[in-house]
Amino acid sequence: MKIALAQVNYHIGNFEANYLKISALIEQAKTDKADLIVFSELAIGGYPARDFLEEPSYIEACLQQLLQLALFCTDISCIIGCPVKNKAEEGKKLHNAAFLLSNGKIMFQVNKALLPTYDVFDEYRYFEPAKSFACIELQGHKIALTICEDIWNIQKSMYTQSPMEVLMLEKPVLMINIAASPFHYSQAERRIETLEANVLKYRLPIIYVNHVGAQTELIFDGGSLVMLSDTTITAQLPYFEENLQYVDFLGGRNEVILASDNLVTLVDQKKNFSVKPLLSMPELADEVLAYSDLLTGRIYQALVLGIRDYFKKSGFRSAVLGLSGGIDSALVCVLAVHALGSENVHVLLMPSKYSSDHSLKDARDLVDNLGIQMHFVPISSIISSFESSLKADFIGFEQGIAEENLQARSRGTLLMAFSNKFGHILLNTSNKSEAAVGYGTLYGDMCGALGILGDVYKSQVYQLCKYINLKEVIIPTNTLLKPPSAELRPDQKDSDSLPAYELLDKILFLHIECKWGVPELTAHGFDCEIVTKVIKLVNNAEFKRYQAAPILRISPKAFGMGRRMPIVGKYS
Amino acid sequence: MKIALAQVNYHIGNFEANYLKISALIEQAKTDKADLIVFSELAIGGYPARDFLEEPSYIEACLQQLLQLALFCTDISCIIGCPVKNKAEEGKKLHNAAFLLSNGKIMFQVNKALLPTYDVFDEYRYFEPAKSFACIELQGHKIALTICEDIWNIQKSMYTQSPMEVLMLEKPVLMINIAASPFHYSQAERRIETLEANVLKYRLPIIYVNHVGAQTELIFDGGSLVMLSDTTITAQLPYFEENLQYVDFLGGRNEVILASDNLVTLVDQKKNFSVKPLLSMPELADEVLAYSDLLTGRIYQALVLGIRDYFKKSGFRSAVLGLSGGIDSALVCVLAVHALGSENVHVLLMPSKYSSDHSLKDARDLVDNLGIQMHFVPISSIISSFESSLKADFIGFEQGIAEENLQARSRGTLLMAFSNKFGHILLNTSNKSEAAVGYGTLYGDMCGALGILGDVYKSQVYQLCKYINLKEVIIPTNTLLKPPSAELRPDQKDSDSLPAYELLDKILFLHIECKWGVPELTAHGFDCEIVTKVIKLVNNAEFKRYQAAPILRISPKAFGMGRRMPIVGKYS
Repeated sequence: MKIALAQVNYHIGNFEANYLKISALIEQAKTDKADLIVFSELAIGGYPARDFLEEPSYIEACLQQLLQLALFCTDISCIIGCPVKNKAEEGKKLHNAAFLLSNGKIMFQVNKALLPTYDVFDEYRYFEPAKSFACIELQGHKIALTICEDIWNIQKSMYTQSPMEVLMLEKPVLMINIAASPFHYSQAERRIETLEANVLKYRLPIIYVNHVGAQTELIFDGGSLVMLSDTTITAQLPYFEENLQYVDFLGGRNEVILASDNLVTLVDQKKNFSVKPLLSMPELADEVLAYSDLLTGRIYQALVLGIRDYFKKSGFRSAVLGLSGGIDSALVCVLAVHALGSENVHVLLMPSKYSSDHSLKDARDLVDNLGIQMHFVPISSIISSFESSLKADFIGFEQGIAEENLQARSRGTLLMAFSNKFGHILLNTSNKSEAAVGYGTLYGDMCGALGILGDVYKSQVYQLCKYINLKEVIIPTNTLLKPPSAELRPDQKDSDSLPAYELLDKILFLHIECKWGVPELTAHGFDCEIVTKVIKLVNNAEFKRYQAAPILRISPKAFGMGRRMPIVGKYS
Repeated sequence: MKIALAQVNYHIGNFEANYLKISALIEQAKTDKADLIVFSELAIGGYPARDFLEEPSYIEACLQQLLQLALFCTDISCIIGCPVKNKAEEGKKLHNAAFLLSNGKIMFQVNKALLPTYDVFDEYRYFEPAKSFACIELQGHKIALTICEDIWNIQKSMYTQSPMEVLMLEKPVLMINIAASPFHYSQAERRIETLEANVLKYRLPIIYVNHVGAQTELIFDGGSLVMLSDTTITAQLPYFEENLQYVDFLGGRNEVILASDNLVTLVDQKKNFSVKPLLSMPELADEVLAYSDLLTGRIYQALVLGIRDYFKKSGFRSAVLGLSGGIDSALVCVLAVHALGSENVHVLLMPSKYSSDHSLKDARDLVDNLGIQMHFVPISSIISSFESSLKADFIGFEQGIAEENLQARSRGTLLMAFSNKFGHILLNTSNKSEAAVGYGTLYGDMCGALGILGDVYKSQVYQLCKYINLKEVIIPTNTLLKPPSAELRPDQKDSDSLPAYELLDKILFLHIECKWGVPELTAHGFDCEIVTKVIKLVNNAEFKRYQAAPILRISPKAFGMGRRMPIVGKYS
């Protein structure tokens, strides 16, 4: 039985475009004499479709597409994910289902049982979990078909059901898992470990097909694969790319699956980055915040894909951003050039009287290195006109945050003027450390349609720049060496008001990723005063982050929809 | 058995403040010789605590407060909600629990079974549902104690369990339901209908205790009550206020509960506003969008409480907003004065060359009527300085959105300067109709910490103004009569680019509240071209709304966390 693994970049709700892709791949697989083609979870409609799922016309459109595809599956079978109405009177209105299409019709429907409802996931918001389980049958083979999280209970105890335990009673010869499992920097290892654990426990080979491509914040990295029952990976689809590959299943439990010619060699990523459970592991912070080629390269690729797909899927081509001469905007600029091409990246240099000469030089050097379009728009006269308009009301008050923010907001306004005038999308350059402690100006440097670095700690910003400069110096050395500064007042340094980033990032990681509060942090030797201050800053900045741009997620816990905090809550 | 109903305004995570309130009420109830005092769902810690619930130290703090309160319950029993660890190895880490405290210790724990995970609710994100059920016992009486949604399955079929069905096997004599059930304009009727349905089905009286007070977007309206088994409401606590009331339970099924002296008369609200199921009911749109004293007055009260609590709980006192002379800012201004006092509301008049004379006059009239502080900051010179800075880059391009937005963003920057300088909170004045179709400028008129009208359609804005002006004209008549305009270019009217609000609001209501797509709307006689345009506008504005301020929720479907849409999705 020749099986095709189709790793596809879907566009949520864009039924026409998705249909073209899916049907072309089925056609290709037919031509290549495949018996079965496997698409990923909720391939029809795309994932995550969120509250589109609550619109009856959306669900009807999904069903129509499924039926249309079924008609197309005559000389081939197809497994594909699709949301579908729950026919029972009780329970949620929908199922997250996988269908086996064959002989022009729907042969089997399998519903997902374990519905991730944590972090960025909201599946129980829409779907009723399956409570009964049966294998599907194809060419006389019993196959245990499951959907994503359905096999993840092997490592987590978040559910009280276990689909595979029930399916094993039927003695299947193969597992197929279709997934929509988003990227974070250690997800690839977790995924392989989970597949290994299943393969070892059930003594069966597994075919795993995942989404690829970015849907605003969520980046899907693909990495579909076939693992034999001895845990050998015999086919590995690439990360961050669409791909179609074939394997031959010879039948019979534990029998070998042969990968076809276009087998991609698996990089043994586990050697470079070991996965450890969160929460109990302060060492995890050190590991993530330290430099590694593998991890940093992976984050780099994810961010590039995240930018590229945001533009492609929202129908835009060109980006604009402000270059300060600092490290964050330099990094975003390089990522944007990689994702969109140098001809599509426009930068503004908007110096004030507090901007240093070296900042301007560093920004210009980067522009030269990248060969992009630069616009020079000084803001001094704009600031003066704001200040003179406010003079009567502000007289007798000391200069302070209000005046500093005028600079940031004038820059934001100029960038948005370019965005509005030329149809560029404004990229936001705030990093995760700043976003965490509220070190940024709402409607100023927090402007932008997409937060490129909002899930990247300052320490990781440095790592990514180092990675970029490995072969040749693209980001000016001075940008990397000088102390970080917002340059909103004379001789300002980030370190004036924040702990050194090395310490800050570690505290933030333990608080945000590992959920440690003051008690856990002080018990592990962190200074109580610093920790209390940092956590208070994090809590007090909720109102700012609520209005931040969506953030490309590269960690297990990004700001945005995966972290939902009260705004007027007072716990710290 | 004398029972106290404690309807309390909690502050999420503010353990000290909450403890002071709870313990004082217990003390009061002891003094008044009550046998039992009932607090609402998740009273300990507050609701919704969201991802605070994932912090082990937060859960530990809740437990410590529960234990401390138990010690305090010596001559009285207490029912109170508190999040607590799930001791089982499988399933979610927590339960949403209700405790009976008595004799200085925890006597019973009841876990919530039906976990709302839709709209603004995320309970399955945190809690494992109860699977077994038992009555609690107090003074020899069996009591069916449930938590909020646990009794709502009587009208919905969203769950496959039914706690009350199981509890009835023990033949209880009384139902107690503790809730954290947020306000929307028709929730009071739905709540009473749900309680009636339970009372009639199980032939038991019910004591219902709800939260009161606002937690950023969510406004809890209280309305705790006691309903006899013949559906007579024998005690009704007020809406939108903290309150403590007593009833005497004489024991025995169907026996009468006597309300004590401070019984509040129930307004028969059902006569004025009938509740109908969503989705199948286009008439619902007409009902909500038409004026009624009761409904409008209720929304008015909710918005005032929403503003007041946001300020109180975030530790601020004064507000700033821009007055355009238009109806939205006028309404927000009146609400803010009611919530915060005229001395705490500061307004900016920021005319441009496109501002009409009547706008300035209307704004000044309102300022006079309210006796608030006004600042006059014209923006022409600021706009000029932006335009001259951009001249070199914009030369040869026609004036358009970019220039219009400069005005809105300059105003936003000025308002934020006042906010930063004087510690005022900026109130956002965008209404739901505008927010829906993206008729607003990001970082411009979309600035603000809290969206006061973001869940109020333009038609309802007019209704609220009419309501305010019933006794005396506070909002200038001209503000109500003139055609709406953003005044960003000469002679601009909202109706230039949008359908009339009467039609627009109806389409929006059916699309947003009722989830109707193009097929359903055209099937009901709406013009296909208009409907397609409106829904496309709604979808294309997702990126803007993502960065909007949190919005006070007054409808069953508000923008914000209760409506989660893909940003780069392309379905319409």
